[in-house]
Amino acid sequence: MKPIRLGMVGGGSGAFIGAIHRIAARMDGQFQLVAGALSSNPERAASSAADLGIRGYDSFAEMARAEAAREDGVEAVAIVTPNHMHAAPSVAFLNAGIHVICDKPLAATTEQACQIAEAVRASTARFFLTHNYSALPLVREARALVAEGALGKIRLVHAEYLQGWLSDETHNKQADWRTDPAQAGAGALGDIGTHAWQLAEFVTSQTPSHLSAELSSMVPGRPIDDDARVSLRYASGAKGGIWASQVATGQENGLSLRLFGDRGALEWRLQDSERLVLTPKDGPAQILTRAQDRSGSFRTPPGHPEGYLEGFANLYKDIAGIIRGDDSLTGRVPGLAAGLSGMAFISAAQASSRRDGAWTSVAP
Amino acid sequence: MKPIRLGMVGGGSGAFIGAIHRIAARMDGQFQLVAGALSSNPERAASSAADLGIRGYDSFAEMARAEAAREDGVEAVAIVTPNHMHAAPSVAFLNAGIHVICDKPLAATTEQACQIAEAVRASTARFFLTHNYSALPLVREARALVAEGALGKIRLVHAEYLQGWLSDETHNKQADWRTDPAQAGAGALGDIGTHAWQLAEFVTSQTPSHLSAELSSMVPGRPIDDDARVSLRYASGAKGGIWASQVATGQENGLSLRLFGDRGALEWRLQDSERLVLTPKDGPAQILTRAQDRSGSFRTPPGHPEGYLEGFANLYKDIAGIIRGDDSLTGRVPGLAAGLSGMAFISAAQASSRRDGAWTSVAP
Amino acid sequence: MKPIRLGMVGGGSGAFIGAIHRIAARMDGQFQLVAGALSSNPERAASSAADLGIRGYDSFAEMARAEAAREDGVEAVAIVTPNHMHAAPSVAFLNAGIHVICDKPLAATTEQACQIAEAVRASTARFFLTHNYSALPLVREARALVAEGALGKIRLVHAEYLQGWLSDETHNKQADWRTDPAQAGAGALGDIGTHAWQLAEFVTSQTPSHLSAELSSMVPGRPIDDDARVSLRYASGAKGGIWASQVATGQENGLSLRLFGDRGALEWRLQDSERLVLTPKDGPAQILTRAQDRSGSFRTPPGHPEGYLEGFANLYKDIAGIIRGDDSLTGRVPGLAAGLSGMAFISAAQASSRRDGAWTSVAP
Amino acid sequence: MKPIRLGMVGGGSGAFIGAIHRIAARMDGQFQLVAGALSSNPERAASSAADLGIRGYDSFAEMARAEAAREDGVEAVAIVTPNHMHAAPSVAFLNAGIHVICDKPLAATTEQACQIAEAVRASTARFFLTHNYSALPLVREARALVAEGALGKIRLVHAEYLQGWLSDETHNKQADWRTDPAQAGAGALGDIGTHAWQLAEFVTSQTPSHLSAELSSMVPGRPIDDDARVSLRYASGAKGGIWASQVATGQENGLSLRLFGDRGALEWRLQDSERLVLTPKDGPAQILTRAQDRSGSFRTPPGHPEGYLEGFANLYKDIAGIIRGDDSLTGRVPGLAAGLSGMAFISAAQASSRRDGAWTSVAP
Repeated sequence: MKPIRLGMVGGGSGAFIGAIHRIAARMDGQFQLVAGALSSNPERAASSAADLGIRGYDSFAEMARAEAAREDGVEAVAIVTPNHMHAAPSVAFLNAGIHVICDKPLAATTEQACQIAEAVRASTARFFLTHNYSALPLVREARALVAEGALGKIRLVHAEYLQGWLSDETHNKQADWRTDPAQAGAGALGDIGTHAWQLAEFVTSQTPSHLSAELSSMVPGRPIDDDARVSLRYASGAKGGIWASQVATGQENGLSLRLFGDRGALEWRLQDSERLVLTPKDGPAQILTRAQDRSGSFRTPPGHPEGYLEGFANLYKDIAGIIRGDDSLTGRVPGLAAGLSGMAFISAAQASSRRDGAWTSVAP
Repeated sequence: MKPIRLGMVGGGSGAFIGAIHRIAARMDGQFQLVAGALSSNPERAASSAADLGIRGYDSFAEMARAEAAREDGVEAVAIVTPNHMHAAPSVAFLNAGIHVICDKPLAATTEQACQIAEAVRASTARFFLTHNYSALPLVREARALVAEGALGKIRLVHAEYLQGWLSDETHNKQADWRTDPAQAGAGALGDIGTHAWQLAEFVTSQTPSHLSAELSSMVPGRPIDDDARVSLRYASGAKGGIWASQVATGQENGLSLRLFGDRGALEWRLQDSERLVLTPKDGPAQILTRAQDRSGSFRTPPGHPEGYLEGFANLYKDIAGIIRGDDSLTGRVPGLAAGLSGMAFISAAQASSRRDGAWTSVAP
Repeated sequence: MKPIRLGMVGGGSGAFIGAIHRIAARMDGQFQLVAGALSSNPERAASSAADLGIRGYDSFAEMARAEAAREDGVEAVAIVTPNHMHAAPSVAFLNAGIHVICDKPLAATTEQACQIAEAVRASTARFFLTHNYSALPLVREARALVAEGALGKIRLVHAEYLQGWLSDETHNKQADWRTDPAQAGAGALGDIGTHAWQLAEFVTSQTPSHLSAELSSMVPGRPIDDDARVSLRYASGAKGGIWASQVATGQENGLSLRLFGDRGALEWRLQDSERLVLTPKDGPAQILTRAQDRSGSFRTPPGHPEGYLEGFANLYKDIAGIIRGDDSLTGRVPGLAAGLSGMAFISAAQASSRRDGAWTSVAP
Repeated sequence: MKPIRLGMVGGGSGAFIGAIHRIAARMDGQFQLVAGALSSNPERAASSAADLGIRGYDSFAEMARAEAAREDGVEAVAIVTPNHMHAAPSVAFLNAGIHVICDKPLAATTEQACQIAEAVRASTARFFLTHNYSALPLVREARALVAEGALGKIRLVHAEYLQGWLSDETHNKQADWRTDPAQAGAGALGDIGTHAWQLAEFVTSQTPSHLSAELSSMVPGRPIDDDARVSLRYASGAKGGIWASQVATGQENGLSLRLFGDRGALEWRLQDSERLVLTPKDGPAQILTRAQDRSGSFRTPPGHPEGYLEGFANLYKDIAGIIRGDDSLTGRVPGLAAGLSGMAFISAAQASSRRDGAWTSVAP
């Protein structure tokens, strides 16, 4: 099968997530990167494109126009810019009928999110949001188990995403935009809290109705939250919590999810991502591995550890499948709905925190 | 050295914690159980005393009187009754000049707690509260590390105590009084939440100033909380959380503490109680064992696992030392202050929960 | 029930295992220590006895005579001396009709072992050998699972006991006799290798027929093995290995057992002693805890960690039961047969090692 | 930089390791697969090549001739056939001056291995052997630590590679050639034992001088070893063991290495491949992660799990570097020496096993 022609916005030299997207797109041979507006700096855009051997553009607008006009133009584009620069290119490519694969969170502001939503609804092209962790095989198996009722009625949900890399007043390309309210929109809450939120939502197939949030800036002078503690209420009566922190000293990338139902429990941790602990109410805990995964989200036999890049690649592989017409994959690839849910989480949490933790409706 | 003569109130046949106290008292040979008012049922009191080969009494009041009058009467008494029956015997023995070793939490109501407090202040005898987990060697080492500044300024505190044994509508001797508001005063909050609270307080040497609580009764018809989610604010600016649940299906006894400071982090879990993870900000995590414990709270070399009973016995051993005059041990054995702090936690959490999670002062 | 009157040979001040036996005997209230020949040094014997408040003797021979003559004399005696001093007191007490609870290994030489064997056969009293690890609840459950066929036909057996405390040329009371061939008979092989051997034998109910051994003295000048690597062949066709080392730097007390059968596998590690991993051939691994133990070898609910001392106490409790006439417990308390098997292991391994690892029959 | 033109021998549809090599070669964009003799079956060779969009050949001999003659012919070729088909294509491509990237073990017989060795020595092209596990970042860090003396003098080496997938009489494409002596040369010993051997050799920079082996065929009727237990002696006085099994029921892919020196110890397990446990003799164990890796063998920050495919890709990336002239990378990419060492291991172990475990020299 011929690879799908892929473009990229952002991801020039020195960027982090752009390189990840490129590896993920390449891993299963389903995409070929052919064009990019890789930087807002024209020189860096040109040199980065040359390094990658692809068509380079000075701006995403020009790229959208030009590629849409080419017979061999890009069929899909990856948007890997800071949050405040998701909306404009997404809209431009969607309007041009080009599929969009956008990094999370959806946007820096609710207004930007709405612009994307409108463009998605008006476009013939698809919109995908790379909440990569939900594409890991044991996470997908967790979702299947919950759907089948392995936990019974879910009572307690607890998701954490703990990092320590912003424990100091750090300055570098990655830290700078993430701690700038104008570019990021939210701090730990948006950058990693939305991953925890989406993970819980993906696995439980439930969205909390209300939340109470305590946002903190632990590093003196930091203008954005670096620690977010959120309590959750579900319409079902379930209760939950999300704790996202970037000042959890020593934590490298501690994403985890724990669910307790009236018939069983599930626990998954990114740091042991190839194992899923299922504890039926009346029996011993079981350690599920990829041998039990029914989603087929892997390339190697169980015990040959796959990880972060493979999870990302699972998304790209499924996106290729959807673009080629396999709609059965749609349910497991996050898109606009997940993005809007994440924005509702951010905005409800910010509102609650401003009102000293008052319970606040999560209205998408 | 001659063993200290010990009495017991509660702990008749079929009781749980009474048997634990007896083993703990016996383990290091520092105590000899000689008398008891082991049950409010006179027949069971008599037969239980006969089984143990000790002087039996029908009531704690009679026991306090009689033992105080004997030359070879008990020097200390363990109170191992349900929460609402802590105050009356504690007061009786304290008034009789007999040391009291009381199970936690301090009482079922604030009023009862005050009665104990008054009696302690008026008595020449000592009062000890068996928050046993804080006597485990790695917990004591954690406290020492925090005091020395190994974590720097503490920013984040997270304690959990998760059990699943009340996931159903359970009925047995242990469950019945613990889910009866009149006898217990509080549910998961009081039974295990206070352990988590005391653990965090003991290790950090800090008490939160305010809290916001969400108490739930997940099992239909249960008249008391079985899940408690509490957010914490410290005067220092630190933030924290306590999550205590008895409906966390599949969890046997999941007590844990995580601390993050600006220079390092600590993590301890009861299910791996002989290891303490210390992560300096700029170095690899270190796995401390009893080889690093400086409190001497053990009987065997590192690697010969000690556990719950030994932790309890550490308390009894230190209590024996204090009774014999070694005041250097006082700081590490919980007493009235820890008990009152726990009661303040319960009452603030109940008040906050009634006011939909409003931030509430923790006034001891 | 009245406690059984217990004596002790060895275990004076400064000893390690004597204190362990005393705690274990005391834990469940089934024994009362009343007499002892606690040291070969008369002054230390007397002062140690006084410290413990028991009848003291200068020699075990005198003690056996005197106690046998008393109406309230000891009913059982714990022998906690170095290996070469197991036989003489065991014989003396067995001849006096007093039950013997002997520390492992059985003896320092085959000749001494035979003396004990003859005395056991001639005596009305019982002989118990404290291979404590096999009394841990999950080890007993492992044995039950194997007996029920949960693993099918066992193919592979692997036991390890790794310690690092003799990595240097260490000198102290514990190290000195253990590294003296005359007192110990064997080094790592006897001190901890026999534990691994007995653990494998206890759980599988099989004894290897042949072995090939490589014994090493890694610390220059050490006159005894400090590392033993032994390959095993079973009559059933199963193969196995035992690795015992006291120069495994950094290992505190790493005892473990892994079994692989044609239908499933089991893994148990002392450092996580309250969990047993059962992996059926066609399903996920299961983490068994005391909730699954069917031997009742515990005092607290699952999740309240018990450990080394409780395992030892399980033996003492069962020994009390057997002494009182409950023969159903005999099968799970090691005795002469386990002791002789251990001696056969030591002697076959030493013979094989002398012959450069030639396969050698394990003749008990 | 332009990708290196890569060919492949073997790896047609249904193959396992060929697909792995393709992903690894693609991951960092350093290679482009352009040609292949993907199957000995001409039809499958043609259709597999068409699927991949590359030049297809009926035979490796034809491919070597044709590609060597093209200006845009392959610069390197990956040999991913069963063991007995490594030598002929390796020789053909080496003779044609084309770099060879060969899967392990080197060959099915010593004679085949010698043919490769001669061709390597005669060729201007390079020869690489894909012992992928030694390219994982924490394994490389382990080697660096040993080289720096972090363990002092190494005394004990223990490597295991346990799988359970051949616990039954299994028949499929992967199982069939691996259990055929003619195609594989050795069973568990060659397929995974050589990985364990190479891992130990790579990390310690030492090769055992003698070994004693016990090879078994546990599944009735299997004509090749499925379990190999090997004892090792080093010239330095160190001792060791390798245990490789494919009948370790329930084990997915249990590769591990433990080293004990007179100053410290190291432990690494593939199932927790992103952590390396370093235990200095007199301090707590340290958990090293990629934050401590100094080899730069990764694409993402620590805590974003990388695994098996990334390890393989590390090799391909370094091979690309070496092909482009960076000789500083040579030391960490296995080649002919590692392959010959592995063959010496296989042949000594088979010889020792035939002589009932006699100690046998490992002569490369």
